[in-house]
Amino acid sequence: MADRVHLYDTTLRDGAQTQGVDFGVADKRAIAEALDGLGLDYVEGGWPGANPTDDAFFSAAPRLGHARLASFGMTRRAGRSAENDPGLSAVIGAGSPVVTLFGKTWDFHLREALGVDLVEGVDMIGGSIAEVVARGREAIFDAEHFFDGYKANPGFARDCLRAARDAGARWIVLCDTNGGTLPHEVERIVGEMASLVPGDRLGIHCHDDTGNAVANSLVAVRAGARQVQGTLNGLGERCGNANLTSIIPSLVLKLGCETGVTPERLRRLTHVSRLLDDRLNRPPARGAAYVGASAFAHKGGVHVSAVEKDPRTYEHVPPESVGNRREVVVSDQAGRANILARFRDLGLDIAPGDPRVQRLVDEVKRREHDGFAYDGAEASFELLARRALGRVPDFFSLVSFRVITERRTDARGEATTLSEATVKLDARGQRFLTVGEGNGPVNALDGALRAALVPMYPALGGMRLVDYKVRILTPEDGTRAVTRVMIESADHGGHAGAARHWSTVGVSANVIDASYDALHDAISWKLSRDGAT
Amino acid sequence: MADRVHLYDTTLRDGAQTQGVDFGVADKRAIAEALDGLGLDYVEGGWPGANPTDDAFFSAAPRLGHARLASFGMTRRAGRSAENDPGLSAVIGAGSPVVTLFGKTWDFHLREALGVDLVEGVDMIGGSIAEVVARGREAIFDAEHFFDGYKANPGFARDCLRAARDAGARWIVLCDTNGGTLPHEVERIVGEMASLVPGDRLGIHCHDDTGNAVANSLVAVRAGARQVQGTLNGLGERCGNANLTSIIPSLVLKLGCETGVTPERLRRLTHVSRLLDDRLNRPPARGAAYVGASAFAHKGGVHVSAVEKDPRTYEHVPPESVGNRREVVVSDQAGRANILARFRDLGLDIAPGDPRVQRLVDEVKRREHDGFAYDGAEASFELLARRALGRVPDFFSLVSFRVITERRTDARGEATTLSEATVKLDARGQRFLTVGEGNGPVNALDGALRAALVPMYPALGGMRLVDYKVRILTPEDGTRAVTRVMIESADHGGHAGAARHWSTVGVSANVIDASYDALHDAISWKLSRDGAT
Repeated sequence: MADRVHLYDTTLRDGAQTQGVDFGVADKRAIAEALDGLGLDYVEGGWPGANPTDDAFFSAAPRLGHARLASFGMTRRAGRSAENDPGLSAVIGAGSPVVTLFGKTWDFHLREALGVDLVEGVDMIGGSIAEVVARGREAIFDAEHFFDGYKANPGFARDCLRAARDAGARWIVLCDTNGGTLPHEVERIVGEMASLVPGDRLGIHCHDDTGNAVANSLVAVRAGARQVQGTLNGLGERCGNANLTSIIPSLVLKLGCETGVTPERLRRLTHVSRLLDDRLNRPPARGAAYVGASAFAHKGGVHVSAVEKDPRTYEHVPPESVGNRREVVVSDQAGRANILARFRDLGLDIAPGDPRVQRLVDEVKRREHDGFAYDGAEASFELLARRALGRVPDFFSLVSFRVITERRTDARGEATTLSEATVKLDARGQRFLTVGEGNGPVNALDGALRAALVPMYPALGGMRLVDYKVRILTPEDGTRAVTRVMIESADHGGHAGAARHWSTVGVSANVIDASYDALHDAISWKLSRDGAT
Repeated sequence: MADRVHLYDTTLRDGAQTQGVDFGVADKRAIAEALDGLGLDYVEGGWPGANPTDDAFFSAAPRLGHARLASFGMTRRAGRSAENDPGLSAVIGAGSPVVTLFGKTWDFHLREALGVDLVEGVDMIGGSIAEVVARGREAIFDAEHFFDGYKANPGFARDCLRAARDAGARWIVLCDTNGGTLPHEVERIVGEMASLVPGDRLGIHCHDDTGNAVANSLVAVRAGARQVQGTLNGLGERCGNANLTSIIPSLVLKLGCETGVTPERLRRLTHVSRLLDDRLNRPPARGAAYVGASAFAHKGGVHVSAVEKDPRTYEHVPPESVGNRREVVVSDQAGRANILARFRDLGLDIAPGDPRVQRLVDEVKRREHDGFAYDGAEASFELLARRALGRVPDFFSLVSFRVITERRTDARGEATTLSEATVKLDARGQRFLTVGEGNGPVNALDGALRAALVPMYPALGGMRLVDYKVRILTPEDGTRAVTRVMIESADHGGHAGAARHWSTVGVSANVIDASYDALHDAISWKLSRDGAT
């Protein structure tokens, strides 16, 4: 299958419907440029006239190299002409080279939700598309609810497509708006539409309500569609839109389709996916297909030694092909092969027979038995490995700490709680006694540590705590419960000032103690990576 | 399609390979029981002999009602007989009624990774399955790497299946171990195997490395397979296994398959999905198909009013069919119905029109918006409901507390940490000032509360804290982070002195504060249930 498949991104419009997602204009520009650099053919920027952000975006639209910018809106309202519909005028007037209009193709919606008759419904589509074409723009028709509509009233649904086609739409896109259509149905219905609309004018737009949006997009391409709409990382309302981050590599690497995302550009995919999460301040999904941090992670000892012999044994594509990388996970099941692979990843040069390797294997096993988990705490593992080689200085050493949390109820019954921490520590031959306040004990402890350390290591000022998790564990062999704390920290120390995240772990019978240990590792990792002494 | 489809869960084995997932024996038991209650046909408990947790699980296996428990392992090693292979003996010896063995069906793996010749490879499968059958167990063969193997060397891959079939395997399960196979390939290859293995002995096991594991499982069923393997919430290494939480509703509601998960049991699906996340201390995926909190969320305006007129306009299935609920901004009818149903569950008699119902709906919404989660904290919800009806006395009221945690390092560099808490509280008209010590702040606080309360309420002496979980949340609408603490408590107050567990929740900017609130609820729930005054 060597046909050209066109990729249409709607992260900035349909993706903005995600609960908790709120793009600013700067976000939209940065994401549009990243999509352009990746090689997408169309970037849908928003709905002009619907909100001030979208208006601001279009009024100073980014200049894209490869991608064509699309504005989105709906066909004319019932009872108006396409020339005199203010909503439609705003969409066309935004000035983008492409205008995408959606219109209802399910008779049930027209009758129940809008109370519009079917003849008028068809004319709303044809007239609006004709207006876009008359104004010299590339017109795309998104056939809303097409699959449900076609099942309910195939004659009407076909009439809608025919009207858009005859009015000159460059693309007619079949939308599974409610996301309930299964792959075998998509394949059949797209195939049936090929007689009405040629494949090189037919597109697909899926939602993930049954977990099949990626598959539905791929089967539609196999059935003849040549445009795929979706979003980065599957953003979108409810369960999200079709995830282009998953679809593109399968099209390029497995189905042999030609797309604007060349094999060379495909290597930017993981970066673009993470950039979106950074913009949204979300932790990237570890298990995401192709681009997740775990997508090429190997845990079991058998897997690791097989992958070392030949990566094809447990990898369906080379991780570099999508800009991702192999990760060898350290865990209970880890053998020497894992540890050696990790040393290489960290750029630490060590001979396989070095006795320190076995000592580290034993140390990791002992600690995991005590409740440590290095699976999700790569920074703590890295410190352990570097310490095994004697390559991490003790940046500071704690003498003691005391944390006080106090809740008081005032005369009106209102409670207030405050935490205060004092730490005594030695660093660079000096003793420090500092105090910190916070809305929680760990926060207060962090404050007291910073009070002592930031004057000496100013870079610590740019580090922040982004996640904190606690679990009580009862190790198999005893009744004594221990607490495991995992801390995620972040700064802007990545390449070109990009966000950098790292995770550390602490284990103790006491939660504050465990938190302190995780905090200590978090600070030490940063100082070690930044080359402090 | 009315055939019976058998559901096989491997959350406890393949799901345990997920990065960051670490099941204890108690977790495994609780999850096995929940899967059984949901109506799964097979529950794979682990790999006997592989680690102490799995051995402990099988040595005191839970008694399941509907589901059959499976132990998992590999076929005999090269050069041994099936009767004298210690690994295989451990798996069969675990005593479960079902034994699932995996074996390699890709010639490349035998040659490259194991260095075993193909004739021996086929015999390792046949001989091992025969041994399971001879020992009176139901045998299942997981054909590892089947799709890659069949593409590379179809003759050998077929020989492997034939050996398992002829040795008496009840099921032969085609595994897409590396997860790289696309739906059209799965459909074709499963179809081709139907001539070798009848559909009612053919199963499918997919991984999500291309985002198609759900679709691959569904197309396999359409192509004739009658067993589906997967995990709850798609747990599993790399990108995860096929997500049964997404597959089951499509099988039952859309493909009309008969499964052990009856339409009635399907209503437990969302609860079981959230229970697993609670056990793992993970935030549930909001956008998960069918069970996510956003799966039936409608943003304001057109969608909401259309959904109010007829939910089919924007919902592909009714949310109640999977135990989920619609989330709409206005007039939360689902919320009222839900609350009324919960009142009934608690044996609380209240008229649907009672204004206290609406007040409770509003209170729950407000609190969930602030970060409370009542899904996993039934005892806190029950207190809230009983308080709304004025049926919970204030057993005690806190005036203040202070918790001090101190770590000291002695002359030899050994650190010790101790927590001490003082509480001031009023109960039965008296003021108490007590102190408690503990190996953690919550433990110390618990001790101080008991010092005041146990003399008055001796039954509290038999209550213990069995789990404690903390998460940092950033509510959608703000930048202020809050901490959510969930506590699980237990006593022997169940029927005939059986263990009784209950969960409570507290939310605050301060972790100690949130812990206190969860502890307060835990004690109040027990006193209320025990009929104290």
